[in-house]
Amino acid sequence: MAFLSMELADLVKHRPERTEPDDFDTFWADTLAEARAAAPAGLRAEEVATGLTTVGVQDVTFPGFGGQPVRGWLVRPRGVEGPLPAVVTYVGYGGGRGLPHDHLLWASAGYAQLVMDTRGQGATWSVGDTPDDGPGAGPAYPGSMTRGVLDPATYYYRRVFTDGVRAVDAIRTYPGIDAERVLVAGISQGGGIAIAVGALVPGLAGVVADVPFLQNIRRATEITDEMPYKEVADFCKTHRDKVETVFGTLSYFDGLNFAARGTAPALYSVALMDEICPPETVYASYNHYRGPKEISVYTYNGHEGGGGHHVPVALGFAASVTRER
Amino acid sequence: MAFLSMELADLVKHRPERTEPDDFDTFWADTLAEARAAAPAGLRAEEVATGLTTVGVQDVTFPGFGGQPVRGWLVRPRGVEGPLPAVVTYVGYGGGRGLPHDHLLWASAGYAQLVMDTRGQGATWSVGDTPDDGPGAGPAYPGSMTRGVLDPATYYYRRVFTDGVRAVDAIRTYPGIDAERVLVAGISQGGGIAIAVGALVPGLAGVVADVPFLQNIRRATEITDEMPYKEVADFCKTHRDKVETVFGTLSYFDGLNFAARGTAPALYSVALMDEICPPETVYASYNHYRGPKEISVYTYNGHEGGGGHHVPVALGFAASVTRER
Amino acid sequence: MAFLSMELADLVKHRPERTEPDDFDTFWADTLAEARAAAPAGLRAEEVATGLTTVGVQDVTFPGFGGQPVRGWLVRPRGVEGPLPAVVTYVGYGGGRGLPHDHLLWASAGYAQLVMDTRGQGATWSVGDTPDDGPGAGPAYPGSMTRGVLDPATYYYRRVFTDGVRAVDAIRTYPGIDAERVLVAGISQGGGIAIAVGALVPGLAGVVADVPFLQNIRRATEITDEMPYKEVADFCKTHRDKVETVFGTLSYFDGLNFAARGTAPALYSVALMDEICPPETVYASYNHYRGPKEISVYTYNGHEGGGGHHVPVALGFAASVTRER
Amino acid sequence: MAFLSMELADLVKHRPERTEPDDFDTFWADTLAEARAAAPAGLRAEEVATGLTTVGVQDVTFPGFGGQPVRGWLVRPRGVEGPLPAVVTYVGYGGGRGLPHDHLLWASAGYAQLVMDTRGQGATWSVGDTPDDGPGAGPAYPGSMTRGVLDPATYYYRRVFTDGVRAVDAIRTYPGIDAERVLVAGISQGGGIAIAVGALVPGLAGVVADVPFLQNIRRATEITDEMPYKEVADFCKTHRDKVETVFGTLSYFDGLNFAARGTAPALYSVALMDEICPPETVYASYNHYRGPKEISVYTYNGHEGGGGHHVPVALGFAASVTRER
Amino acid sequence: MAFLSMELADLVKHRPERTEPDDFDTFWADTLAEARAAAPAGLRAEEVATGLTTVGVQDVTFPGFGGQPVRGWLVRPRGVEGPLPAVVTYVGYGGGRGLPHDHLLWASAGYAQLVMDTRGQGATWSVGDTPDDGPGAGPAYPGSMTRGVLDPATYYYRRVFTDGVRAVDAIRTYPGIDAERVLVAGISQGGGIAIAVGALVPGLAGVVADVPFLQNIRRATEITDEMPYKEVADFCKTHRDKVETVFGTLSYFDGLNFAARGTAPALYSVALMDEICPPETVYASYNHYRGPKEISVYTYNGHEGGGGHHVPVALGFAASVTRER
Amino acid sequence: MAFLSMELADLVKHRPERTEPDDFDTFWADTLAEARAAAPAGLRAEEVATGLTTVGVQDVTFPGFGGQPVRGWLVRPRGVEGPLPAVVTYVGYGGGRGLPHDHLLWASAGYAQLVMDTRGQGATWSVGDTPDDGPGAGPAYPGSMTRGVLDPATYYYRRVFTDGVRAVDAIRTYPGIDAERVLVAGISQGGGIAIAVGALVPGLAGVVADVPFLQNIRRATEITDEMPYKEVADFCKTHRDKVETVFGTLSYFDGLNFAARGTAPALYSVALMDEICPPETVYASYNHYRGPKEISVYTYNGHEGGGGHHVPVALGFAASVTRER
Repeated sequence: MAFLSMELADLVKHRPERTEPDDFDTFWADTLAEARAAAPAGLRAEEVATGLTTVGVQDVTFPGFGGQPVRGWLVRPRGVEGPLPAVVTYVGYGGGRGLPHDHLLWASAGYAQLVMDTRGQGATWSVGDTPDDGPGAGPAYPGSMTRGVLDPATYYYRRVFTDGVRAVDAIRTYPGIDAERVLVAGISQGGGIAIAVGALVPGLAGVVADVPFLQNIRRATEITDEMPYKEVADFCKTHRDKVETVFGTLSYFDGLNFAARGTAPALYSVALMDEICPPETVYASYNHYRGPKEISVYTYNGHEGGGGHHVPVALGFAASVTRER
Repeated sequence: MAFLSMELADLVKHRPERTEPDDFDTFWADTLAEARAAAPAGLRAEEVATGLTTVGVQDVTFPGFGGQPVRGWLVRPRGVEGPLPAVVTYVGYGGGRGLPHDHLLWASAGYAQLVMDTRGQGATWSVGDTPDDGPGAGPAYPGSMTRGVLDPATYYYRRVFTDGVRAVDAIRTYPGIDAERVLVAGISQGGGIAIAVGALVPGLAGVVADVPFLQNIRRATEITDEMPYKEVADFCKTHRDKVETVFGTLSYFDGLNFAARGTAPALYSVALMDEICPPETVYASYNHYRGPKEISVYTYNGHEGGGGHHVPVALGFAASVTRER
Repeated sequence: MAFLSMELADLVKHRPERTEPDDFDTFWADTLAEARAAAPAGLRAEEVATGLTTVGVQDVTFPGFGGQPVRGWLVRPRGVEGPLPAVVTYVGYGGGRGLPHDHLLWASAGYAQLVMDTRGQGATWSVGDTPDDGPGAGPAYPGSMTRGVLDPATYYYRRVFTDGVRAVDAIRTYPGIDAERVLVAGISQGGGIAIAVGALVPGLAGVVADVPFLQNIRRATEITDEMPYKEVADFCKTHRDKVETVFGTLSYFDGLNFAARGTAPALYSVALMDEICPPETVYASYNHYRGPKEISVYTYNGHEGGGGHHVPVALGFAASVTRER
Repeated sequence: MAFLSMELADLVKHRPERTEPDDFDTFWADTLAEARAAAPAGLRAEEVATGLTTVGVQDVTFPGFGGQPVRGWLVRPRGVEGPLPAVVTYVGYGGGRGLPHDHLLWASAGYAQLVMDTRGQGATWSVGDTPDDGPGAGPAYPGSMTRGVLDPATYYYRRVFTDGVRAVDAIRTYPGIDAERVLVAGISQGGGIAIAVGALVPGLAGVVADVPFLQNIRRATEITDEMPYKEVADFCKTHRDKVETVFGTLSYFDGLNFAARGTAPALYSVALMDEICPPETVYASYNHYRGPKEISVYTYNGHEGGGGHHVPVALGFAASVTRER
Repeated sequence: MAFLSMELADLVKHRPERTEPDDFDTFWADTLAEARAAAPAGLRAEEVATGLTTVGVQDVTFPGFGGQPVRGWLVRPRGVEGPLPAVVTYVGYGGGRGLPHDHLLWASAGYAQLVMDTRGQGATWSVGDTPDDGPGAGPAYPGSMTRGVLDPATYYYRRVFTDGVRAVDAIRTYPGIDAERVLVAGISQGGGIAIAVGALVPGLAGVVADVPFLQNIRRATEITDEMPYKEVADFCKTHRDKVETVFGTLSYFDGLNFAARGTAPALYSVALMDEICPPETVYASYNHYRGPKEISVYTYNGHEGGGGHHVPVALGFAASVTRER
Repeated sequence: MAFLSMELADLVKHRPERTEPDDFDTFWADTLAEARAAAPAGLRAEEVATGLTTVGVQDVTFPGFGGQPVRGWLVRPRGVEGPLPAVVTYVGYGGGRGLPHDHLLWASAGYAQLVMDTRGQGATWSVGDTPDDGPGAGPAYPGSMTRGVLDPATYYYRRVFTDGVRAVDAIRTYPGIDAERVLVAGISQGGGIAIAVGALVPGLAGVVADVPFLQNIRRATEITDEMPYKEVADFCKTHRDKVETVFGTLSYFDGLNFAARGTAPALYSVALMDEICPPETVYASYNHYRGPKEISVYTYNGHEGGGGHHVPVALGFAASVTRER
């Protein structure tokens, strides 16, 4: 996408109206209460033999939406005395928690990392192990974006965001972790989950959202032809009479409404040639973000964003917000 | 696909080895028994206002897998005294039962037609209304082909084929239908379901399977790059360690094993340039088919197959097998 | 085409200047007079064996441009006493009249339907049987759009629109048809022909034009890369010195000039993501339409438009304009 | 097309059976006699102002099929005393005679060149000026390949090959041309025409056919997905019931049947990665060629063939066969 | 590219700010002085046997950047008394000087033509024979656009533009050439080189720049996805921290800065649907051009521009500026 | 690439003839001797601040081909007493050494890793910092594959393979490294370099070559359309007269000739749907490999190969060959 739909000078000021249902907060309060009632926070962990010497990896399970077991990896530096700061990371669309060796960065930098598996995903590019036990809820376009989309109660991301919150609950209970110094982080879908969790869990040390997905969703479906936003457009293309129902549901899950509630320090990144998560939608979220914030801009990049060039920025941000005072 | 992978002279003799699990028949007998135990056969019907004068359409529901409600349309010629011969039709991949006006052919030719909705599908090209209430069963590649594929018990098509059988059960109970003169029919996935149902339900008048999908599945994943067979290949691409598990499951659902059991008269069609359901896989099924059979060959066609040119052939076949004697 | 070139709020007001040659009316009056002089209106019909019981189909021929024989299908409900209201339908680009079973809708709803074959087309997606005996008129880009385009007298659509008018003339002469209750209808090219015929034939009951082609042609060649408008652009790309000649010819055939003359009640449909017949060009026509009019808007659709969701709308419109008073 | 369908070692021996109608020779004898009866050979020429100093260009017209006027360019070196050897060149698919400056090579090498316009083409890549006044003959797939294909008498290439013959007739009558030293030449479709004309006109000095089209047509439609052979495949895809009719017609026009009759010295070229005119079909023709012959093989080339590297080869061949003895 | 990013009415006034380094003139004066010091102007020529009779071709070598030998072809009409006007032509991106028979136009029109090989190119579409002996200068994206781009001193086009200047120096020394009547010309990259050379060499008779590349480079990388501008965008995509360095270098090579210095009469051409060298960038250059100028506009064309239709325009322009007074 | 060109049963036996120049060994002995004479082995290292705690990273430089400085990263576990086993890794095509955080695996597993930058590459997907100071050597197709390909002495990979050898020389001199326990490893191009270095350097502990590139090159250019093998095919497409010269040069660099000389234990991996490095070419190399060897086969994978699933296999192999005895 070379053609700039909106120049940077306009993007930095772009703050479109949000569409927020009246019962947004109730909906989420009820959802989380229900999940927490279903099972107490906790993390079951089993050591994995990896051949690695500097870090240790555990195969973990914690209760997510409806108390259903959600898988993950817990990766920690070996031979370090805690309590450690921690990062809960969420995975990009279509992938799962992957394999132990995929997650060396945060532990190598001195953090405990909890990689949350994304229910029902985990076959497109990295493997997953967590089923999505949500209720069947009518037809869906291939992928996860329209699963149960005709009702907020059955919509897929209700379960996923809840899992994300419960991952934070879980890591905070774990021995050797400093519950006050927990960040949430992710790229694309992972960034979208991080923004949602950042608004739903108090007391987080920081939110790292790279080229986040699930922001300003309706607008996104109007301006990009790329999956996965296009899953929604294609659903509406077939279900011509369900357009308003669909976007009614999605207003409970749009990142703009979470951004407007987030208070933890946030680091965003945006790529100006990103066709998958258009810069217009990322800035819409960033400009609504309520807490302290900064954003890294990558001019000639698509959805790969800052890549390795952004790693030191993210490490620096994490260090600054987890520094013990 | 202009390049012929196998010349017609070879196709007509192509009859590859089948891979059949020892408990294939038990698996299906148990599955159907369980479904029938969950709910008695029956069809709830509600008249639909369509503006049509020659045919009447009803919105119907019948118990499918696990007794779960499956939707459909029942379309019948108006003003005709029964009992009518009937055709149960199954829909192509990604679609649902669609809209009433989509189904005028069979009723215009004097048949009652029951269009079965395909659970969980119905968003890609035609609308559907039936959720898939199957158990969450691990990660899946977008689409239906790998949903629950790590275990035959949780695999998606276990539910769909059972729905297909129960659709026949349902129509046979309906007033004004001649239970002895019921055909099953479908194109692509619909043809694959028809072949399976044809082997699982005794006493059918005929099976019409156009360019059927789900035949010789493993081979198909090796020779075509097209969806939906490619969903399986892509799942295996990510889950490199699950290849044998996947094909172990699929052997319970491969059309070749149903074809080898089908005894009702069958009409197949095949398109020699079909990249989605390669002719090699269709002939593999046809050549294993146990009952009386005929096949229409369309030389320069892809997956659109015989299209309108095949309609009179199918009507002629249906007439010949439902003719009262 | 996700990217909106023009927002809906602007589309509904979009009414660009028309380019109309001074002798537009004379050109068409002369053309039709000549065609009518060549042969009297009439319809030769031969029964076709279809295996259908609720409707009857006849293979028909009527005199078109220059009195040349044009083929079609006449489909009627069986066992209904007339006189029947009738719909003359025109086919989309590249297709022909197709096969009898393709045309069950209107007859099932109580109308006589005359499906007009499109001369010289009928090989791309549905079969046709009518040659185009027009004069050779210089080079043409593959397809029909530039056949004879260097002169209005030799241009392909002069013959086609005239055929379309003569189809109405023909059906009006036919026994059992109510000449006062004739509609013209079509999708894409068919809709473009319907709009033209609607302006050239007085006394029509209605015009149904779905995602119509051939509206605001010059603008279309500037904003879409899709065939068939692109045939014109590609012709001009090679014939760099003929651009004004080409558009001079096309001004005699642009739907905007017909819309401005149409007085029968009209039902348009438009798809906001239609790249083949861009919404801007459809609204340009609709906003110039002179008679009573309504339009159905399909937001997330491309050129498939309203599909089955639009069928009840069209049936309702037809019923309202053919209701006997 | 990197994948070799047939290795070179096999290609050089590849000589498939020809399909030749019994009345092939009669068909062509009658066709040519009729054309010659319609108008005497001759060339009307008008000087063109080109700004060129070393060569002169004339805009010419000669009688082709049915005596219809066919356009061309006559390009000759200035200030050279004749009689000159001449080359009649035919144009590749979709193009026309182009513009005067496109044709400098042969005149710069001392030949008179007659560039024949291809009727009805001339809009895809180079401009043309000759209409195709053939009878309308049923539906055709966009392009020229299926125009009138349901009958040899109405088939497009009947007219084109006849034009090609009449172009030789015409140049041989022209002052300053040595009628004994006339070659025919062309690339792709031009090469196909040259092979046909080479078999239909006695006494030619040579035939130059580069990557010739229209050789072993039925086989080509089975092994390539590329236009223009695909026009035939796509016609058959829609007209499923006309496959044998189509190839019955095409057997009167297949280059293999002309090659088997050609006696003038021939220079072929073939490109081993040519997907448009697959090497298998070119060798099929070459290996059937009856007269003295040679072939240049370009290994890593597609349909662009030998390009500029082949020019000296062609000039050398032309020099050797036109050398005065 | 059908979609107009900027209407013609705006293009003709489009004159964006230039970005010009302070030492632009010094940089080029030093560069040329150095090159001229390395070797005196001159042209070594060797006759080539081509089989052509109206023109003669010589294989030539002249000293370019750093005195390095640059190859070319010198093509002249035979049997004409000089001194001849001359045209130095530069080749489009990826190509080399090609083969002798590729260059017949200018000589056929009475000019001597020096075709300059482009160092290091000459493999993508036409062959070249001149190596690029520039210093290795860090990583580069495949192609020539980013070779040495981290420093103006090592940048690839410093060498190429200098070669272009030295080509003019060389031809002016050659016997039989009129040094006062030398034009520079080229298409795309060739046009970009011509504009640069036109500003760096005094006393040229004219500059012919068709759809010129290398104009308003930074803007081009923002609005087109096409190679070769995209090579720069892709380099920046990977080297996220070098964006300003890259465009700092490129400001020494941007055609706008040369156009603002060009005083010879110039003929531009522009194609309004050109995605490779967008019309916006061509007009940006044209509107900054300082000398007498004219521009040909091709409306429905992409990067092929005016093609053969533009040849007479270019010949007419060349005649008018080389006419002896 | 679903279509299997060669079944696995045939692949495991596929051992085509090698094309080896007589002076292959001399060529490489001379090349290495010259490089070693130019500069003594050694590694200059500078600590990099990374924010990482478990591993340390150094920015290193060592003398490569012609003694030219080659960059790299040296990554080592912190706080571990040596001497450490080491892995020299080579990068895939188009990339450079990347950024420090990209290389955590080997150090996390207890190895010192030297990442060698690839000269002149490092802009397509990961950044590089090493220029290619080779002699200009005629035209090249964009990319590295044909740089200097007309002569083995100037060919690009002569310099790269020599750099690869010198990287091993360098690491062996470094304090804290066990010179007896050095592996070479790489994916794709990196695997091709590893195979070459494995044959050129005695005493290596092991060679890890994943989906290696540069094996059986001529065959590869005949059976794949994918870059970068296609760079060679495209060069030959333009330079039709240089085909044998090109493959003459490449025979000095073909992995089959190195494999036939490699004696260190080797671990290959191959992906059966790899279109970039076709399995046929990988097995050709593997089957010629002279030393102890094993191969991992990934059935449904393309050029991504075993990905994370292969990591434990590679770690296990490395552990087994570096185990101190």
